[in-house]
Amino acid sequence: MLSKVETAAPGTVEGAGASEVVQKARAAKRAARRLAVASTKQKNEALAEMALSLEAHEAAILDANRKDLERAAASGSSQARLDRLKLTSERLRAIAASVREVIDLDDPVGRTVRAWRQPNGLEIAQVRVPLGVVGIIYEARPNVTVDAAALCLKAGNAALLRGSSDALESNKAIAAALQEAIVKAGLPEASVQLIEDTGRAAAQEMMTLNGLIDVLIPRGGAGLIEAVVKNATVPVIETGVGNCHVYVRKDADLDKAERIVINAKTKRPSVCCAMETLLVDEGVAAEFLPRIGRALKAAGVEIRGCDRTRRYIEDAVPATEEDWRTEYLDLILAVKVVDGLDEAIDHIETYGSHHSDAIVTESYSDARRFVNEVDSAAVYVNASTYFTDGGQFGFGAEIGISTQKLHARGPMGLPALTSTKYIIHGSGQIRG
Amino acid sequence: MLSKVETAAPGTVEGAGASEVVQKARAAKRAARRLAVASTKQKNEALAEMALSLEAHEAAILDANRKDLERAAASGSSQARLDRLKLTSERLRAIAASVREVIDLDDPVGRTVRAWRQPNGLEIAQVRVPLGVVGIIYEARPNVTVDAAALCLKAGNAALLRGSSDALESNKAIAAALQEAIVKAGLPEASVQLIEDTGRAAAQEMMTLNGLIDVLIPRGGAGLIEAVVKNATVPVIETGVGNCHVYVRKDADLDKAERIVINAKTKRPSVCCAMETLLVDEGVAAEFLPRIGRALKAAGVEIRGCDRTRRYIEDAVPATEEDWRTEYLDLILAVKVVDGLDEAIDHIETYGSHHSDAIVTESYSDARRFVNEVDSAAVYVNASTYFTDGGQFGFGAEIGISTQKLHARGPMGLPALTSTKYIIHGSGQIRG
Repeated sequence: MLSKVETAAPGTVEGAGASEVVQKARAAKRAARRLAVASTKQKNEALAEMALSLEAHEAAILDANRKDLERAAASGSSQARLDRLKLTSERLRAIAASVREVIDLDDPVGRTVRAWRQPNGLEIAQVRVPLGVVGIIYEARPNVTVDAAALCLKAGNAALLRGSSDALESNKAIAAALQEAIVKAGLPEASVQLIEDTGRAAAQEMMTLNGLIDVLIPRGGAGLIEAVVKNATVPVIETGVGNCHVYVRKDADLDKAERIVINAKTKRPSVCCAMETLLVDEGVAAEFLPRIGRALKAAGVEIRGCDRTRRYIEDAVPATEEDWRTEYLDLILAVKVVDGLDEAIDHIETYGSHHSDAIVTESYSDARRFVNEVDSAAVYVNASTYFTDGGQFGFGAEIGISTQKLHARGPMGLPALTSTKYIIHGSGQIRG
Repeated sequence: MLSKVETAAPGTVEGAGASEVVQKARAAKRAARRLAVASTKQKNEALAEMALSLEAHEAAILDANRKDLERAAASGSSQARLDRLKLTSERLRAIAASVREVIDLDDPVGRTVRAWRQPNGLEIAQVRVPLGVVGIIYEARPNVTVDAAALCLKAGNAALLRGSSDALESNKAIAAALQEAIVKAGLPEASVQLIEDTGRAAAQEMMTLNGLIDVLIPRGGAGLIEAVVKNATVPVIETGVGNCHVYVRKDADLDKAERIVINAKTKRPSVCCAMETLLVDEGVAAEFLPRIGRALKAAGVEIRGCDRTRRYIEDAVPATEEDWRTEYLDLILAVKVVDGLDEAIDHIETYGSHHSDAIVTESYSDARRFVNEVDSAAVYVNASTYFTDGGQFGFGAEIGISTQKLHARGPMGLPALTSTKYIIHGSGQIRG
């Protein structure tokens, strides 16, 4: 409705004057129609070819990746950024292996969600169908190019991939390898396409191609996600930002609490389900805080505490209002002493990002209140927030972790890459 | 993330300088926390009180409605618009009855979508929860104020209602009656709020209140929906536009075909699931078109036909490219003769709005191809498109018909007004 590009008359000379984004989006739309009716067998064959092709083109891909790395190093990229960008023979084999894992995932397309017969004899079935054309806008890591392509294809979607300029040569080499495989398997080349224009205008164009792009999924840092949410008129699935809490209730088993806090903060501080704020009941602060303070410091964690926290962890940096809101993604932890369950829930609802939050408690009724009243994608009792992950939930690979409430919330497996349609079989019924 | 209004520190003097929209959205957010944990019994009691209160305040509501009508008449509103705006004692009783019907609908909140145990002992359940704060931006009809409020409340959501200036006095009187009832039932007054500022800036503000408003649902004409889709950064559920087709295949039962075409076009041409274009196979055109032409003209329908159509319906107006794209919502029908199934599907995919499309055929394989390849919210075999409606699908009342692929597609019953959360029960698990 917003955009009329999708209604170009059949036979119109396409691409005449159209941008790369529009041309590829149109090709994706056509490919999506064929992918929607492709059999699971055909899609799995394409995935198997994709894995083989990545391995077969290792030399070209690593060569392209070296060019990206040289350019990135010359422009002064940080070591961490270079490492995320870097591909090796081993990493490429791991990426190919991850494509093969997608073969084993259940194909959600065609699954009947529910079906019933109406009193007038109409038979109504709600059936899973692909979303259509899925746009992914993402940053540096070239493995996202493969992951997104494989998951989209398995769910019957055409993928329109827009990576960052840093990884352009790597992404081009990878996309070429994937397209070769897809064509070999008899599916349309445009099932997976890379947008090579890494300029801002091209990304903006993707965000407003209503009618050609069905859904946009940004994957990357908060700035990228915010820009997409702000500027897109195409429906967006917001992913990623996690200001997660662990709340140690006064009756907690403190061994469990220590284990969970250390795991949630230190195991992999850069992921969105890592803990960023620890809340501790006043009643247990004198016992727990000195102990967890020592353990955290031993793990290299900087502590930013409220006034009450600093009575028990004396060298903690004073926390400011801003600390309660911050997703550090680093070995830094905000710590606050609270009066009890009400204050803890209020704090989480006020400052949290509704991603993953945990309570450590032995109280049945407090556990129930916490899981019912904390409005987050994942709420835990006596377990680490670091479990919020498609693989850990048993979904296999994930396309991201949704932090919005529409469509999908939490880790998104393949069904999150589908929609549904109603199919109605009748025998001439009309409505009175 | 986009907006920091939601993270105002507890204890901050709210409303100091904040607009009506922000103040009411904050109040809605607080109300939503209480509604999320309200029992079904409590919510049903509130609905019962709401119906009673509408009846008790009939005089005040009709009086307010008269003021709206007088102003609208003075400003030259059309008779159709005045009729949509008008409330009578009878209409108000029907509105109250529709609230009582919501009492009988299943409460989706708390329903377990699925639950399983992971190998490490974690018990994971995906459970339905309210969306939170639902914003509805809608036009003229004051009954939407009640419908939206009742459905949102039953699904545990706070409703922020922004009607049009035409209906402001009616909506204020209705909202006051509803709030009185809600308070009487022990739920927060801010469960249902009307935004009284009907200016454009207030609507724009609603569209960008990320963090305070969880979802926006526009209900009204194409212009309103387009404006919301274009300007909102809050997730939107797009509703309503329907350029629907009936395709009469060469082997169709022509009695069924005539019945379905007449029903889909003429029963209620102003609804989104009414047929706008009729496609007829060349092979049956000579037999069917003269016959359906007579029947349509007898029903007062203006026909706009392609060249081949006009061979059989001589007085049809010549159709232009624009006709294939147009949602008339009126007694006008575009008619096109096609060579067969491929051309019919191509036409629907090219010009349709992916709402509701039907084939009339006796062919098993053609029926299968049509339902699989037409990418619409509802695809019919041998039945009228006019069935696309929550009531007709057995969902009870509906909040609208989604024409997007994210979250909900087709008629939206109460579950479409919910999200889910994952609740994970552990015994101290950490991730290795």
